[in-house]
Amino acid sequence: MKANSPSVLLIYTGGTIGMIENPDTGALENFDFDHLITYVPELKRFNINFHSFQFDPPIDSSDMDPSFWVDLVKIIDRNYDNYEGFVILHGTDTMSFTASALSFMLENINKPVILTGSQLPIGKLRTDGKENLLTAIEIAAAQYPNGEPIVPEVCVFFENHLMRGNRTIKHSAENFRAFSSFNYPPLATVGIHIKYEYNLIRKVDKNKKLKAHYLYDPHVAIVTLFPGIQRDIVAPVFENEKVKAIVLRTYGSGNAPQRPWFIDLIKRATKRGVIIINITQCAAGSVEMQRYETGIHLLDSGVISGYDSTTECAVTKLMFLLGHGYDYEKVKKLMSSDLAGEISKMEDY
Amino acid sequence: MKANSPSVLLIYTGGTIGMIENPDTGALENFDFDHLITYVPELKRFNINFHSFQFDPPIDSSDMDPSFWVDLVKIIDRNYDNYEGFVILHGTDTMSFTASALSFMLENINKPVILTGSQLPIGKLRTDGKENLLTAIEIAAAQYPNGEPIVPEVCVFFENHLMRGNRTIKHSAENFRAFSSFNYPPLATVGIHIKYEYNLIRKVDKNKKLKAHYLYDPHVAIVTLFPGIQRDIVAPVFENEKVKAIVLRTYGSGNAPQRPWFIDLIKRATKRGVIIINITQCAAGSVEMQRYETGIHLLDSGVISGYDSTTECAVTKLMFLLGHGYDYEKVKKLMSSDLAGEISKMEDY
Amino acid sequence: MKANSPSVLLIYTGGTIGMIENPDTGALENFDFDHLITYVPELKRFNINFHSFQFDPPIDSSDMDPSFWVDLVKIIDRNYDNYEGFVILHGTDTMSFTASALSFMLENINKPVILTGSQLPIGKLRTDGKENLLTAIEIAAAQYPNGEPIVPEVCVFFENHLMRGNRTIKHSAENFRAFSSFNYPPLATVGIHIKYEYNLIRKVDKNKKLKAHYLYDPHVAIVTLFPGIQRDIVAPVFENEKVKAIVLRTYGSGNAPQRPWFIDLIKRATKRGVIIINITQCAAGSVEMQRYETGIHLLDSGVISGYDSTTECAVTKLMFLLGHGYDYEKVKKLMSSDLAGEISKMEDY
Amino acid sequence: MKANSPSVLLIYTGGTIGMIENPDTGALENFDFDHLITYVPELKRFNINFHSFQFDPPIDSSDMDPSFWVDLVKIIDRNYDNYEGFVILHGTDTMSFTASALSFMLENINKPVILTGSQLPIGKLRTDGKENLLTAIEIAAAQYPNGEPIVPEVCVFFENHLMRGNRTIKHSAENFRAFSSFNYPPLATVGIHIKYEYNLIRKVDKNKKLKAHYLYDPHVAIVTLFPGIQRDIVAPVFENEKVKAIVLRTYGSGNAPQRPWFIDLIKRATKRGVIIINITQCAAGSVEMQRYETGIHLLDSGVISGYDSTTECAVTKLMFLLGHGYDYEKVKKLMSSDLAGEISKMEDY
Repeated sequence: MKANSPSVLLIYTGGTIGMIENPDTGALENFDFDHLITYVPELKRFNINFHSFQFDPPIDSSDMDPSFWVDLVKIIDRNYDNYEGFVILHGTDTMSFTASALSFMLENINKPVILTGSQLPIGKLRTDGKENLLTAIEIAAAQYPNGEPIVPEVCVFFENHLMRGNRTIKHSAENFRAFSSFNYPPLATVGIHIKYEYNLIRKVDKNKKLKAHYLYDPHVAIVTLFPGIQRDIVAPVFENEKVKAIVLRTYGSGNAPQRPWFIDLIKRATKRGVIIINITQCAAGSVEMQRYETGIHLLDSGVISGYDSTTECAVTKLMFLLGHGYDYEKVKKLMSSDLAGEISKMEDY
Repeated sequence: MKANSPSVLLIYTGGTIGMIENPDTGALENFDFDHLITYVPELKRFNINFHSFQFDPPIDSSDMDPSFWVDLVKIIDRNYDNYEGFVILHGTDTMSFTASALSFMLENINKPVILTGSQLPIGKLRTDGKENLLTAIEIAAAQYPNGEPIVPEVCVFFENHLMRGNRTIKHSAENFRAFSSFNYPPLATVGIHIKYEYNLIRKVDKNKKLKAHYLYDPHVAIVTLFPGIQRDIVAPVFENEKVKAIVLRTYGSGNAPQRPWFIDLIKRATKRGVIIINITQCAAGSVEMQRYETGIHLLDSGVISGYDSTTECAVTKLMFLLGHGYDYEKVKKLMSSDLAGEISKMEDY
Repeated sequence: MKANSPSVLLIYTGGTIGMIENPDTGALENFDFDHLITYVPELKRFNINFHSFQFDPPIDSSDMDPSFWVDLVKIIDRNYDNYEGFVILHGTDTMSFTASALSFMLENINKPVILTGSQLPIGKLRTDGKENLLTAIEIAAAQYPNGEPIVPEVCVFFENHLMRGNRTIKHSAENFRAFSSFNYPPLATVGIHIKYEYNLIRKVDKNKKLKAHYLYDPHVAIVTLFPGIQRDIVAPVFENEKVKAIVLRTYGSGNAPQRPWFIDLIKRATKRGVIIINITQCAAGSVEMQRYETGIHLLDSGVISGYDSTTECAVTKLMFLLGHGYDYEKVKKLMSSDLAGEISKMEDY
Repeated sequence: MKANSPSVLLIYTGGTIGMIENPDTGALENFDFDHLITYVPELKRFNINFHSFQFDPPIDSSDMDPSFWVDLVKIIDRNYDNYEGFVILHGTDTMSFTASALSFMLENINKPVILTGSQLPIGKLRTDGKENLLTAIEIAAAQYPNGEPIVPEVCVFFENHLMRGNRTIKHSAENFRAFSSFNYPPLATVGIHIKYEYNLIRKVDKNKKLKAHYLYDPHVAIVTLFPGIQRDIVAPVFENEKVKAIVLRTYGSGNAPQRPWFIDLIKRATKRGVIIINITQCAAGSVEMQRYETGIHLLDSGVISGYDSTTECAVTKLMFLLGHGYDYEKVKKLMSSDLAGEISKMEDY
């Protein structure tokens, strides 16, 4: 224990970063995280105290589930006062979903929660895992001289870029620069120095205490538009009694076909109380429902603007809000509100 | 008629580029395309002969439909011998879908078919429409000294970049640079010069004649994975008797949850003859189904790799192949084959 | 004259943007700027009053000279109260030098001065000139509801990016995106909307009046380091009695050879009162003279850090300060100070 | 010694990558390269044989000199038959100069010579050095199944990008992505896979043997143009009897002032046999001397086009050619020729 040094809790959920090659078969396997220090001896040299917590068994990122988000919230909540920051090692495939969910479930967070991972395992010769891990720890421990954290947010750190977590998407299945945040600039860029963009980091109300949330409802569907979409293909989704909310992945600034059968499906769903939120298929830019006639028709049919939210964020925000049992109007209102830096409205410009 | 000058057919389908502001209401309306020359007087100065063909009424891009693709194929087929190239003005929202579809429906194309449009109407003060239009025409007419076309492909030209059409996605709802082609480099970049990348442009077998296709079957669904996805939400899609093919938007390199109910849904669908194609949610990079265990499970369940195809391309290619009434095995085989430059397999590297 | 509309003064100095092709020879020639409206009929539709002022004869950008900067300052100073903003059309080759110089010569500027130009002439079929011109005018006239200007700075606007003028360099001789500002983010990006970055735009002290400066002294030299540099090649520059200041283009973070003859040349020059300012050859990043031993040696020899200034800016700032006849210590002090947003010191991070 | 494994020679010249922090003072010091394996234990796991050669003392990159290039050529020439590839660890400040020089001095090279380094020392917690080193070794050893090398060129590998060495510049003094190659695309990009661009890699004539060159003449000067440049400031350079060649860093597409005194200086120098080569100050794009009147004047005065060469490459190519004692006409001719992939002429497009 290094006196006067910040403490960081390292939470290993699973994912590529923690894998090693089986020397016999060449297959990638999860390694015992206690041995991390064998693979990253640099950890010993940090002027930071850290403990680690390992999910057992580790979770394959594509099997990630809201119940694990609840586990993560619990771990952070219980250890909140003992650490200056948290680093979550996570598979890349669903990291943006988890980061988005945590940004809502950890209300009033005022310590860094940095998710990271890697495209190649830490146990491989070539790996982006070490730099991602070491730098994430450094950021999680970074404080102003007065002891306040520099980045009191849920973030994704990956390949030299620190991004607000609920703004990220996994953009590339191949490059080390796997994550992008097209609608909000990076909170820090890393090279010789770590350059924080202080103006872009969320301000914290220090009088508010962390409020951990554990409720969620996953009865959400995603519908992606495409030319030639048929009524008999999508109607079963809109008419499914189990579906409480739909993320409608529209074209461009939030446009959709104006065919009567489509508008009719939407109207009947919203009338039944299904939340339909308009999210653009474009990775960059915002829904603007007042811009074109087609957007106005959707508004009239009860569709809510998702502004410049990612699909990943909209899905987890809906699960979060539905889980709290809010009524239709409250969910609609909160989906249009900025809860954790996840949307910018055009009026902001 | 300028003797010895190339001829280009300009096809206006609709979309933002052809809109003007109603001076009274400020709303955007389609203008009579015959008046194009009023808005782009530069057209008169071209050393190119061109005629125009106007869809009446113009099609809002979000109402684009395979039946219009058939119309486009007809127009090009009938005029094929009379023009050196074709420019299609199209709304941006579905341009990538149309470009993908045409790349399959115009088999053996050996003349340029350049789709373009704009983010701001040509009738606005600020507009990207003029440069897009004028440069697209220049590219459609561009020939080698021996009279052969430089770009005998279906392309999208937008904001200084010429891209293979079936590789594009609409990436931004706000920037003039709206389209990207993350998995194949641009065929040309435009600045002071138009710099063609000759090695990247598709080679044509001049002995093969244009074969226009008019068949399609739109009974395709898109399923997007997300953590927390529920059986009772997605089962109706996998079990829908109308659905002949599913584009499964997976994580990263083509991963999916390994829960038994999910694998079971997939197995039962593929057994029924539903084509399921694995396309990554990532805008860049490729599905590699042999990379992780989860991919191997999907392969075993009958899922086909979509390699580095875009979602837009996979959807239209499925409609095209299903429309030809090919049997299950033939569709599977052709989905894994490169028909029009739309996929690169890792073995190519 | 449109009542209640902002007024913009358009100053044409020369450059590619104002050229037309001689129909007989194909050569580019300057056209009479009074005919601008013929080439850009959109200008008539602006809800902005504007007048134009034309340099006669127009100045080829590579013949630009500080005496023309004085002319520009005069024009702006005399017309300052009559216009809401100024647009300067300028050849691209030396636009960054002129923008840098004006940022110092127009002290306390609180109206937009927007330099623009183009890579292809406005009189060509393909041209970036129209969009650059129309958008620059719109930005020069842009005001908050209370009538205050949005961008009270000397800027370069080019290909969808508004940049602080003294931060720009001409980065590309071929692309339409010719200018970059690697060490300071754009002040606005232009697409469907013009998105201003309000936090990044310089704040103005409204109580201070414009102070126009007309003095300059061009006795400045640039020395670029390279491996193998010989004493007998560069000594004549360091020992030249006419040279009052040297911009030393160093390696990386501000490094230079440590050979005795080199250090000696520097020491003897600084002892004689020659200002030597350390600017990195790298387009991005900053000089950090305390980082490596070699930087410390330079400091000890009297070399001043140019921080992250561009070469273009350092040259014009030296001419400006030397022109005012300040003594050695004052020039040293001001070269290390931020006068017009032209440098950021690492301590700012 | 691993049988059947490729062998790589690792040459450590000095530079940041090989530094460690002195635990007492915090200053960066060179470490004994024999201890490299302590800092990069991964090296032991490579299926590659390698030996290392260490410059003693290590060379600070800003003290790099052509005499060291001769040393490097000697080392490679003597060991040429014993290794499949070479990795040169080099400071970043002058790496592009060294890479350019070696591309000329190692004529007919048909094995990989990969220069790399880092922005942060390998002995620091955060460092780009390890990934750069490990990947450079992997590339240096990469072979086709028939045993031929994949990249038989002098390259710079840095932060996931393999670039032709004589096309690189050090672009950033701060980012890990420090090097750019604006006028030639990367030869490979590195992520989960190393993706080689086979079409872009230089073809080798296997019948030609390596021809090592040891001659050079450093009597070269760089002159950078700027508005306000004075005759009495630059004349001493043009009139310096020691100067055999001048790299004239011009504006844009190769433009310069047309003032009589300037043209006169140039004419008199070229008449005296001084080689003057026109290189643009722009990092991207090419000199095109026939484009504007000013370029034609320079041509008439005897200035040679450097096309799209970097300044770094032009300086070292001149030293190389002058060193061989070629006459004026031969140097002019070879400066306009592509010797090692260093220039592309517009006619190539």
